[in-house]
Amino acid sequence: MFFEGSEKKVEIVVGSQFNLMEISKDFWDQMVAYAGAKIISEISTEDCTAYLLSESSLFVWKDHLTMITCGTTTLVKAVKFFFNRFSPESIESLIYERKNEYFPHLQSTNYFSDVKFLSPSVKGTSYRFGMPDEHHLMLFEMDRSYQPAPSDVTFELLMYNLQGDAKEILNSPGHTIEQVRDLLKLETIFPGFKVDDYLFQPRGYSLNALSGSNYYTVHVTPEEIGSYVSFETNLDINETVKHQLSHILEIFQPESFDVIWFRPDHQVPDLSVPQYVARNRYQQTLKSGYTVSYSSHFMEANDYLPATKMEGLQ
Amino acid sequence: MFFEGSEKKVEIVVGSQFNLMEISKDFWDQMVAYAGAKIISEISTEDCTAYLLSESSLFVWKDHLTMITCGTTTLVKAVKFFFNRFSPESIESLIYERKNEYFPHLQSTNYFSDVKFLSPSVKGTSYRFGMPDEHHLMLFEMDRSYQPAPSDVTFELLMYNLQGDAKEILNSPGHTIEQVRDLLKLETIFPGFKVDDYLFQPRGYSLNALSGSNYYTVHVTPEEIGSYVSFETNLDINETVKHQLSHILEIFQPESFDVIWFRPDHQVPDLSVPQYVARNRYQQTLKSGYTVSYSSHFMEANDYLPATKMEGLQ
Repeated sequence: MFFEGSEKKVEIVVGSQFNLMEISKDFWDQMVAYAGAKIISEISTEDCTAYLLSESSLFVWKDHLTMITCGTTTLVKAVKFFFNRFSPESIESLIYERKNEYFPHLQSTNYFSDVKFLSPSVKGTSYRFGMPDEHHLMLFEMDRSYQPAPSDVTFELLMYNLQGDAKEILNSPGHTIEQVRDLLKLETIFPGFKVDDYLFQPRGYSLNALSGSNYYTVHVTPEEIGSYVSFETNLDINETVKHQLSHILEIFQPESFDVIWFRPDHQVPDLSVPQYVARNRYQQTLKSGYTVSYSSHFMEANDYLPATKMEGLQ
Repeated sequence: MFFEGSEKKVEIVVGSQFNLMEISKDFWDQMVAYAGAKIISEISTEDCTAYLLSESSLFVWKDHLTMITCGTTTLVKAVKFFFNRFSPESIESLIYERKNEYFPHLQSTNYFSDVKFLSPSVKGTSYRFGMPDEHHLMLFEMDRSYQPAPSDVTFELLMYNLQGDAKEILNSPGHTIEQVRDLLKLETIFPGFKVDDYLFQPRGYSLNALSGSNYYTVHVTPEEIGSYVSFETNLDINETVKHQLSHILEIFQPESFDVIWFRPDHQVPDLSVPQYVARNRYQQTLKSGYTVSYSSHFMEANDYLPATKMEGLQ
């Protein structure tokens, strides 16, 4: 069995003339349905509502939203639905991201058709971070100048091909949500967050966490073929990132991981992690004021592995 | 401008009851047309005819053939045409390979649809060498035992993202075939071969070379986006491979390269190349008697590069 964990993501800033948190849940239910997902649960602080989705997460602040969806979802359809209420002209910033997938041929769309779908509404520019035949990030930004707040930082950590205990526990029949929480121990590195987590059947785990306007979110797709974990936060963990990164990497022991930063201060921390080789490093300052950096990190291969006999996926 | 250099390849052994070299060129013209390519020129020895194609190469020996096609060709359609004359029951061995592409969404088929297309005629087994989200090789072999001759070795070297002088020369307006020959100096590492080469307009270079039943072939796609070179031979260069490999890598300076060996003796040489990190190593003995090994090698990233602004390809 295979589930595409790799995500599409959109961030839309509507600006301070609107308050997205006043919008009824019914609207978000509909918007999420357009992507082919549904809302499972929610938590809120005064500054943010976090919806846990059947395929990832939706975070709604007063003046902006971040929606992340995985599997074969069609996130751009949700964006178009959003435009019915908030015209593209009224939007201050829109950034759409799509990561390379494990099995692009199982998707109903690709990055280029996504951008084409959005293009009657939004004119923008596309960037590719990385080589098209390796791990890479496709990014579309609306052609509009924007001045992000200095604290508007995003850190994304995408992990591929898990190994070790975590993978075993997350794939074991009848494992409980308590076992997964014990495994992750995220409260030790991110104390003081309100947490909403969900264990999918037969496997898969999602977590949204809020503290004021800060969030972090974790999505785990532990399947044997194409195992994947994403971690994302808007906490500025620049100073402590090596500690957080080590904690998470030690748990999941991925064969490879990618790091994406959005930083208005253009100060992207240099990450070197023992055991991993940096394959790619890309950095680009966008019109919307963020410096985006993308790097891929791989474990070096020592031994020969057997090939994978393919069954299904055809 | 982009051209997909990454190749599909089929090797079919019909056995000694047939002589494929007696078949008229008209048949090969038709077969190649089914793939969406055409024959540009040919050279022959007593043991082999090498056709240079608009998209790669076709080699015909008495008892077997190897056909390699790139771009958006449909090699499996050529295979099905071949079955009209040589029924799958009469075939001793069939191995179909497809490398990961730079831009799979620009292809009209994928590996899985190719295998599905062949499946009414040929039952077989699929293997994946490598991770689906990184460089990898998909391989299909017909479910039939086969005993390759001890000398039946194939070496494939696939190079990605060229750098340095070679890329510049191969992309310069009005460059000549003599300039390309001077650049490659392949006769210094493979003396005594009859050579047939072709310079495509505005760019691109293909070469077939024969000596008795031995061949080597080179296909160069130097375009800025997705530059690619493949080198392949059935010479057993086990002893001297490091020398040949160094020669070719020094010319093209690829950012990454993959090596594929087919060896009936199961003795796959270990390749370590300075400046490159081995990302993946896979090895599998097939029912058809070959040990296939696949390894990916990458240059480590030191500096941050700017992202690629995308124009077109949508």
